[in-house]
Amino acid sequence: MTIPTPQSPAPDIVRCASMELVVSDLEASRRFYVDVLDLVVTEEDSETVYLRSLEEFIHHNLILRKGPVPAVAAFSYRVRTPEDLDRAVAFYTELGCRVERRAEGFVRGVGDTVRVTDPLGFPYEFFHDVEHVERLAWRYDLHTPGALVRIDHFNQVTPDVPRAVRYMEDLGFRVTEDIQDEEGTTYAAWMRRKPTVHDTAMTGGDGPRMHHVAFATHEKHNILAICDKLGALRMSDAIERGPGRHGVSNAFYLYLRDPDGHRVEIYTQDYWTGDPDNPVVTWDVHDNQRRDWWGNPVVPSWYTDASLVLDLDGNPQPLTKRTDASEMAVTIGADGFSYTRKGDAEHGFKLGNTL
Amino acid sequence: MTIPTPQSPAPDIVRCASMELVVSDLEASRRFYVDVLDLVVTEEDSETVYLRSLEEFIHHNLILRKGPVPAVAAFSYRVRTPEDLDRAVAFYTELGCRVERRAEGFVRGVGDTVRVTDPLGFPYEFFHDVEHVERLAWRYDLHTPGALVRIDHFNQVTPDVPRAVRYMEDLGFRVTEDIQDEEGTTYAAWMRRKPTVHDTAMTGGDGPRMHHVAFATHEKHNILAICDKLGALRMSDAIERGPGRHGVSNAFYLYLRDPDGHRVEIYTQDYWTGDPDNPVVTWDVHDNQRRDWWGNPVVPSWYTDASLVLDLDGNPQPLTKRTDASEMAVTIGADGFSYTRKGDAEHGFKLGNTL
Amino acid sequence: MTIPTPQSPAPDIVRCASMELVVSDLEASRRFYVDVLDLVVTEEDSETVYLRSLEEFIHHNLILRKGPVPAVAAFSYRVRTPEDLDRAVAFYTELGCRVERRAEGFVRGVGDTVRVTDPLGFPYEFFHDVEHVERLAWRYDLHTPGALVRIDHFNQVTPDVPRAVRYMEDLGFRVTEDIQDEEGTTYAAWMRRKPTVHDTAMTGGDGPRMHHVAFATHEKHNILAICDKLGALRMSDAIERGPGRHGVSNAFYLYLRDPDGHRVEIYTQDYWTGDPDNPVVTWDVHDNQRRDWWGNPVVPSWYTDASLVLDLDGNPQPLTKRTDASEMAVTIGADGFSYTRKGDAEHGFKLGNTL
Amino acid sequence: MTIPTPQSPAPDIVRCASMELVVSDLEASRRFYVDVLDLVVTEEDSETVYLRSLEEFIHHNLILRKGPVPAVAAFSYRVRTPEDLDRAVAFYTELGCRVERRAEGFVRGVGDTVRVTDPLGFPYEFFHDVEHVERLAWRYDLHTPGALVRIDHFNQVTPDVPRAVRYMEDLGFRVTEDIQDEEGTTYAAWMRRKPTVHDTAMTGGDGPRMHHVAFATHEKHNILAICDKLGALRMSDAIERGPGRHGVSNAFYLYLRDPDGHRVEIYTQDYWTGDPDNPVVTWDVHDNQRRDWWGNPVVPSWYTDASLVLDLDGNPQPLTKRTDASEMAVTIGADGFSYTRKGDAEHGFKLGNTL
Repeated sequence: MTIPTPQSPAPDIVRCASMELVVSDLEASRRFYVDVLDLVVTEEDSETVYLRSLEEFIHHNLILRKGPVPAVAAFSYRVRTPEDLDRAVAFYTELGCRVERRAEGFVRGVGDTVRVTDPLGFPYEFFHDVEHVERLAWRYDLHTPGALVRIDHFNQVTPDVPRAVRYMEDLGFRVTEDIQDEEGTTYAAWMRRKPTVHDTAMTGGDGPRMHHVAFATHEKHNILAICDKLGALRMSDAIERGPGRHGVSNAFYLYLRDPDGHRVEIYTQDYWTGDPDNPVVTWDVHDNQRRDWWGNPVVPSWYTDASLVLDLDGNPQPLTKRTDASEMAVTIGADGFSYTRKGDAEHGFKLGNTL
Repeated sequence: MTIPTPQSPAPDIVRCASMELVVSDLEASRRFYVDVLDLVVTEEDSETVYLRSLEEFIHHNLILRKGPVPAVAAFSYRVRTPEDLDRAVAFYTELGCRVERRAEGFVRGVGDTVRVTDPLGFPYEFFHDVEHVERLAWRYDLHTPGALVRIDHFNQVTPDVPRAVRYMEDLGFRVTEDIQDEEGTTYAAWMRRKPTVHDTAMTGGDGPRMHHVAFATHEKHNILAICDKLGALRMSDAIERGPGRHGVSNAFYLYLRDPDGHRVEIYTQDYWTGDPDNPVVTWDVHDNQRRDWWGNPVVPSWYTDASLVLDLDGNPQPLTKRTDASEMAVTIGADGFSYTRKGDAEHGFKLGNTL
Repeated sequence: MTIPTPQSPAPDIVRCASMELVVSDLEASRRFYVDVLDLVVTEEDSETVYLRSLEEFIHHNLILRKGPVPAVAAFSYRVRTPEDLDRAVAFYTELGCRVERRAEGFVRGVGDTVRVTDPLGFPYEFFHDVEHVERLAWRYDLHTPGALVRIDHFNQVTPDVPRAVRYMEDLGFRVTEDIQDEEGTTYAAWMRRKPTVHDTAMTGGDGPRMHHVAFATHEKHNILAICDKLGALRMSDAIERGPGRHGVSNAFYLYLRDPDGHRVEIYTQDYWTGDPDNPVVTWDVHDNQRRDWWGNPVVPSWYTDASLVLDLDGNPQPLTKRTDASEMAVTIGADGFSYTRKGDAEHGFKLGNTL
Repeated sequence: MTIPTPQSPAPDIVRCASMELVVSDLEASRRFYVDVLDLVVTEEDSETVYLRSLEEFIHHNLILRKGPVPAVAAFSYRVRTPEDLDRAVAFYTELGCRVERRAEGFVRGVGDTVRVTDPLGFPYEFFHDVEHVERLAWRYDLHTPGALVRIDHFNQVTPDVPRAVRYMEDLGFRVTEDIQDEEGTTYAAWMRRKPTVHDTAMTGGDGPRMHHVAFATHEKHNILAICDKLGALRMSDAIERGPGRHGVSNAFYLYLRDPDGHRVEIYTQDYWTGDPDNPVVTWDVHDNQRRDWWGNPVVPSWYTDASLVLDLDGNPQPLTKRTDASEMAVTIGADGFSYTRKGDAEHGFKLGNTL
């Protein structure tokens, strides 16, 4: 069922700004994000670590919070003005969603905040007031070979991608790229507020779940350096997929799994999408360069695994099954097919070919 | 005298989009921009060459037009909607500026266009409708080692920087960084519409003149490759300054001079400025890392030379002298001083030191 | 049976210098090596293309010769003096090998040359006199994003690696790294004359066959650019394995397959091995970071496929089966095991895990 | 007067291996080399710090020793066998040089060592036996953005370059590149044992003095990262020249000055020179791309400043004036001239032009 378009105007979202992750072993997670990935600790206590990237000036881009079940507690967006919080309340109230607002924020470092369970079941957060901290952009004495400089985007798993896209468009997002097939099934869509390829993407699957959160580096060698460091630390099994070049977004990427299995992407060099008529790029699900421009296979876990998300009481959201075709099923295995050169004889993708 | 704030709302400018350059020898300029810098020809005739960068989807980012006097005919901005052209007309009419509008555009590839001579004497252009061309982002078979992927910004020379800034703020721009001294003199200011450090900058000097137009690469090695190629072509004297790391903007840069002396910057990796409370960075004019983070000297020509700009009839604009202190004068030579470590004994900048 | 050590001194080999490849479709191969990989044509005719890398000053590093069966006609080494050819003749004659010498060379651009079928069945070539051509190191106007600057090494498949190593040590090579298991089986060994990790490697398998020939780039992004270009040309299926970081050699790598299936490696940044006591690095075959430091799986074709080699009459050499354990068998599949952290519970490698 | 060629064979030198620097403030020097440049401390005490690069497996590549006068105590070369030390003794004894040999070495980490004051007045050291330490090539967890991976070369100042070259050729070195003028004056020459452009260079000037010692990085961005870090530490005045691309050697470079003014080069990507007929490249002193391929000026201090060297008693060597023309004098200033395009009107170099 379609989510109705509210009469209330959407809040003006500036960008994806932070994710709150519940982790089962705070020390292990801190080692991963701070000692391995070199995110910067803004502040911390025995239950929580607030982290930011090197070019960030707001209090945090990632919160690690100790908890019983690894999950996502909040996908957090910054809005343009304090009044946009009123708009968020009205928008989601009209949608019949549970809405909570706290003038003092739900976490440290931010002020007045609205949290909702959105129509897709995701815990969305909106804030404007925020504590400023030092932007470490010029502090090259603190940069490491794999320096993470910005939070780039979220990626969410939801059963019905077109339904999710329509709701996100009502919230003010625009589609930049998507993956479809000839029958019109949509497998995933990328949507932006800031003028990059996305602030979040909707990936078809059993949901609501969190597929990944992504941080940006300046150059490709920074991403390779993270792989090299993981090898040196004998943590190469944290590398799930990549590094590689995406077809979608044209960005260079790497996917890691943190100690709880939460997926983190490291990402660089997508393109400007801020023009009002930015051309939408639609990829054929059978094009084996769509997910990896070099045709390297997507490992099955990348399709199947994702993190639970929490409701506003901190309980995991139940999952709804995807009923549309699965991208993995149509592209890997006996029934799958894909192409490198359109018009060539169809053939399985490299993973299948080589086994 | 301050430029009054119009009652009419400013047009909603998306980004700097193109510059129209008048060149004295079209073949020589074409060789420089196409054969050396590898910009892409969208279309051309005997009088004009329309060029774009590799990730661009609009018709052009740079126009070379043959003419008697090397100069800038237009600094062109894209606006969000067709109605923003009406706003541009009203805004500049109220300011008493000369305004021309042509439904068919002043150049190929764009539709309805407004051109004005702005209060600072610059030929500003605004357009919305534009012909779409292939975005070559994924066409790596066409990319060269110094691939230019986007137009990034303009830089304008004007005598009174604070006066210019106030007008540009009325036009909807926001300051991201500036250079000042203790007496409050402003030497330069960077201003943005899109969420990078700038769409244009105002540099103090005799004006109106065009200081440079900048194109972005993905990585720093792309910029080094342009230098290497210029060396191989025995054109190293086209390199005026750099490569280096800017203090202001934190970007990696290179300044070239084209066959007519028009200055082109190659630029990469500044930072996100799109938050409403993005912190403004003010640099001390006596900090010798402000213009080059590595303390390498700014060559005098970089301060003194700039291109003429044209009025709407194609005649060069007369120059008004800067009466505020000159950045070059206060930082190079007998009376200049600068510091590497604040509080250290003041000492002249490396150029002076080493002669 | 061990190959006896000749009484005759070995020729003084400077470096691996060139490979002669027989290809079934010269036009297709030329497109691959010239239009895609941007090797430089020194000279060519309807039957043969002579190619070199950008920093080479000898006539060729790769010869493509049209022929009925894709295979390797020569692994060619440069020797230090003309007298080293006499030494080569004596050395191989004493070993009972077939030896041919031609004062005018077997191919263009070289003078006096010795060709042998060596005790392992490989067609080895030795030459000293060579035509000098322009070293294009400074010709950055000709460099492309994936610029190949040097030939780096060969890799040969042979059934009995220790036997091959002993012979190669007699020929003056030194082992820099190898892969073994606890029972003492050697799966592969890397051997050098020039002070890099190798001029050639011996890989255990049915042989004699040619596993790959490798060209070097300056930086890692050059290798990524080759992948990006292959994607743009819809030739991503030419990418067999990588890009990645090797454990062995510590180099960054990519494996491609040419139109005949000949394997080409692109390689950068191994380390200095020229000291007389350079430490040999021995890797455990069960260490899943040995072949890829990031733990990414080795595709089975990389283990199984290799090119035929020719005898001195141009006939393919028959293969001898490897009787020692196969690296693929002991590391992939039901009976294989490997580790990321020594001491952890053994577990299969990522490819197996994720299916 | 020409240095006679000894009858005794020269020792077989493998490579330049280490420099011993006398520094006036050990703490300040340690901060520079360890905290800023991230060289690795092998061992240290209150008087001495032994440092190595990340891919080194011998005990040290640089020794900092506290002393009253900043100077160079030893240019140290590794020889192939223990017997090469006997050859070094005979070679230099025959030349009438002062020779000292210590079975236990002059410094920690090496065994039997020969030190001489060579015919040019330089303190040369030769050793074979050495303590092995961990090669940190794979320890990417320890690598920093400006990772120094190898010692690359020395550069020595001597009044009569051709005289120095003939002696060095007797010692087994070969010239790879040099700078001359039409009258046959040689301004500098690069000479190698290992197959790179040099193990040392002879630069014309008052000598004996040490011009610089050079360390290699893998990629160009590593060198840029050192500049960025120096900027962040407000130490940008440690950057004397560069970064840039050399004409000679084709390498990417940066020159720093340590707290005592000792010059350190950071260097990457020269080319293979190991063939017996490697073509010598001779540059015209008036070619302004010879020292910087991009035509950027050489700062005068780079020509004039160099470090003292010590005799075997630790006393500074007196200097002999250069009587041949000075490269600085013929290329900078009123009488100097240079060209970018041969045949163009001669014109002064960019530094002069722009002042």
